[in-house]
Amino acid sequence: MHSEITTFAVLHQLIDSENGARFIMSKTLTNRKDDYAQWYNDIILKGGLADYSAVKGCMVIKPHGYALWEYMRDELDKRFKETGHQNAYFPLFIPKSFLSKEAAHVEGFAKECAVVTHYRLKNDPNGGGVIVDPDAKLEEELIVRPTSETIIWNTYKDWIQSYRDLPLLINQWANVVRWEMRTRLFLRTTEFLWQEGHTAHATKEEAIEETKKMLDVYATFAEEFMAMPVVRGVKTANERFAGAEDTYCIEALMQDGKALQAGTSHFLGQNFAKAFDVTFRDKENNLDHVWATSWGVSTRLVGALVMAHSDDEGLVLPPKLAPLQVVIIPIFNKDADTRTKIDNIAADIMATFKQAGIRAKYDNDDNTRPGFKFAEYELKGVPVRITLGARDIESNIAEVARRDTKEKASYQLDGIADKIPQLLANIQSNMYNTALKFRADNTREVNSWEEFVKTLDETPGFISAHWDGTPETEEKIKELTKATIRCIPLNNKQEDGKCVLTGNASKERVLFARAY
Amino acid sequence: MHSEITTFAVLHQLIDSENGARFIMSKTLTNRKDDYAQWYNDIILKGGLADYSAVKGCMVIKPHGYALWEYMRDELDKRFKETGHQNAYFPLFIPKSFLSKEAAHVEGFAKECAVVTHYRLKNDPNGGGVIVDPDAKLEEELIVRPTSETIIWNTYKDWIQSYRDLPLLINQWANVVRWEMRTRLFLRTTEFLWQEGHTAHATKEEAIEETKKMLDVYATFAEEFMAMPVVRGVKTANERFAGAEDTYCIEALMQDGKALQAGTSHFLGQNFAKAFDVTFRDKENNLDHVWATSWGVSTRLVGALVMAHSDDEGLVLPPKLAPLQVVIIPIFNKDADTRTKIDNIAADIMATFKQAGIRAKYDNDDNTRPGFKFAEYELKGVPVRITLGARDIESNIAEVARRDTKEKASYQLDGIADKIPQLLANIQSNMYNTALKFRADNTREVNSWEEFVKTLDETPGFISAHWDGTPETEEKIKELTKATIRCIPLNNKQEDGKCVLTGNASKERVLFARAY
Repeated sequence: MHSEITTFAVLHQLIDSENGARFIMSKTLTNRKDDYAQWYNDIILKGGLADYSAVKGCMVIKPHGYALWEYMRDELDKRFKETGHQNAYFPLFIPKSFLSKEAAHVEGFAKECAVVTHYRLKNDPNGGGVIVDPDAKLEEELIVRPTSETIIWNTYKDWIQSYRDLPLLINQWANVVRWEMRTRLFLRTTEFLWQEGHTAHATKEEAIEETKKMLDVYATFAEEFMAMPVVRGVKTANERFAGAEDTYCIEALMQDGKALQAGTSHFLGQNFAKAFDVTFRDKENNLDHVWATSWGVSTRLVGALVMAHSDDEGLVLPPKLAPLQVVIIPIFNKDADTRTKIDNIAADIMATFKQAGIRAKYDNDDNTRPGFKFAEYELKGVPVRITLGARDIESNIAEVARRDTKEKASYQLDGIADKIPQLLANIQSNMYNTALKFRADNTREVNSWEEFVKTLDETPGFISAHWDGTPETEEKIKELTKATIRCIPLNNKQEDGKCVLTGNASKERVLFARAY
Repeated sequence: MHSEITTFAVLHQLIDSENGARFIMSKTLTNRKDDYAQWYNDIILKGGLADYSAVKGCMVIKPHGYALWEYMRDELDKRFKETGHQNAYFPLFIPKSFLSKEAAHVEGFAKECAVVTHYRLKNDPNGGGVIVDPDAKLEEELIVRPTSETIIWNTYKDWIQSYRDLPLLINQWANVVRWEMRTRLFLRTTEFLWQEGHTAHATKEEAIEETKKMLDVYATFAEEFMAMPVVRGVKTANERFAGAEDTYCIEALMQDGKALQAGTSHFLGQNFAKAFDVTFRDKENNLDHVWATSWGVSTRLVGALVMAHSDDEGLVLPPKLAPLQVVIIPIFNKDADTRTKIDNIAADIMATFKQAGIRAKYDNDDNTRPGFKFAEYELKGVPVRITLGARDIESNIAEVARRDTKEKASYQLDGIADKIPQLLANIQSNMYNTALKFRADNTREVNSWEEFVKTLDETPGFISAHWDGTPETEEKIKELTKATIRCIPLNNKQEDGKCVLTGNASKERVLFARAY
């Protein structure tokens, strides 16, 4: 970011108009239709969201990207607390033996992990810096948590004895590590930030209800806050979390027609309770194992946000998530009085924004030209720009530009600040509706294998098709097309049909797509 | 906690009065004067702040303890942002070779670290669960960050080229790991949560100013928010952070007369910039190395909070930090009308609290007796308790008890809720003043070695004494008494004197104490 700004500043001296600066900027981002993957990386890197790091597969989350995560975290945290959950914090490390305790968990998971074997370094006697001290080998290796079910259920054993201790509704904000061979900024990194909820219940019904409730918290958060429509569904057995009885998910559609799993909520049955021997006495003094759920979303959501909304000029942020919602940019002439007048108008608007709780900035930095500022704030995704031009204010108007549609309008200066909250609300709902329409336009019912393959290749998106319900067919379709069953939608319509691959009988359609 | 509540509930059935329940509760905590260390552990464990974990040296932070950390974090974060800092996130892992780059840093630090050597597990062919895959050995080992100067300065190299990129004011909230042999809940654990600020500046003066500014942020936070007075000072060379030119600190005095370092702010000179080759061009196009600071506080503050204020009945929380500020407890008789009346009064009070932003709870749970509730909320440190008794409300009064002084008063029911904000403010300032008086009473000027040793043993606290300024004398005093120089207070009075150990000339007094 910083070096780039410098480069732009130099370039900018060669160009003197707003359009010129924008031209340069648009040239720096790859177009979506030319190379979607490169466009995504350009936005992340040039928009100041993240950077590569010296550690393979790990990224640095830069201030603008971290601010997005903070807004997501704070909003989710509020919703978790409103639904009765408390935060806690469990150790980063898990004793290796814990991973083996739940059979399905270790089988389906947890092989690609960072393993701590030693606890001390020492000076290299040959002068080569520091080396690992061979005398400081751990008796049992520690695993950097890839997820925390095992260490948490080992702890719950001590916390739960009676039905009075239930439900136990705990969430953790933490970093986790899964050693990934192919990584992509935000979407798949070796270390990532996330939250993981881990709850314990007296009955199966209550645990299932919790699993669904948290799925709903995720779905409404994604739709209301991120302006990103999601399909609520349940995973097939193949795609289930290792150790779960059922995995519920929300699936979003990206602009390139690929799906992205944005959150999961697992009903774990009594599997972890049995593995870690967590029992409780009910009101009748009967002993039973506890019922469990876990659920999580991660910094992957930042990647989803970018891919759901942004365009060839840069980020497009929904107002509820934008660290900066409005920027005011002055265009001065050489007259000092006009400058003072513009500064005063801006101060009035800023004061109104402050009272209304709108996050705004007046950027009257003289070292940067307006055209450069326009492009920079577009790249960063600021939802609304107000331009206070020397000539416009003579006519008592200002130009208001919205980032989502790029429409510009002239607003009367009187009461201009009071109109912005409604504009922000309109942008928020327009972004949601645009994404919803995109998804509707790119969700297709398909009834033959030929059509299935053709649709995937020519008009990627969600494919709604019949499937015979077997893991073998699902696996075969994945091998042939790289498409997976994203979910069986909740409240799915029941209809008789024939499996798109095998022709065998099917009772409902499921959603296929290629996915991130 | 949970099992304990159950035990208490059972015990409570044997006892029928408020005094009885309190008697049981006070018996469960060790008294401070009998065994201060055990009292501390009792409060942490029985107050539901933290628990031991299955991983040696790591703790589980339980919801009540985590809530305290959240309030601290949110308040500090606000103050960091107000002083122009932004949050970011850097990798958990540091390549081993990075640690050797800054000579003093590796010499004084970073030997007791968790070392990641492998990135995969596999099923044990002999059926013994999972084993480390010997084929998945890392070429270069990764260190779990004990602090992040090295990885961050390696990143800053790419972010800083020009004076326009400076200052760079970044903070990170993260977990860090330092392999500790002797651990104590919150005070010294192998993994802990903290924030670390890392800033880069164009000039030495600006970096020093930043170092002092952040020390002041910590000090005012500790005093205004935690009600914990601190001495602002600078460390001696011996006690300096590895790689720093100067380490500033805030030091607090605990109730047992031991000192606790509550926060540090380091002026790092150009050491890390030189080690990682971070240079910038100034306005005149000259190339120079960047100037650095780093500063941090950790979950250790939760331990400090406990030891600064709590008593033999449990936690005493300053209102600004208390997750629950007021609890309302009804004492019903058998009359249903009275019950309704009490519920209505409580609802009115709660509504007023909600509007005033006071965190309050009406605990009308019928399964728990008032006496047990009293003891439980005292243990948890809730600052104010309002008791609504059937007889009292006939006379239009309620009992209000404050946790800090244990004073009780009868308040008129009319307008009772409006009086609570002032009471909370009084408690906050009383707690600070009490701690300040305690520190004043336990800070002693000492002028001879005999007096020094006697004071340390008989009336522990801060000792203000002359020191000849040499590391050898400092080391000798530590060997003889376990007392260390906590700091050279800022704005220290200059006076001629003689070193308390060697009799050599000294220009100022420094603060000694035994410390956590």
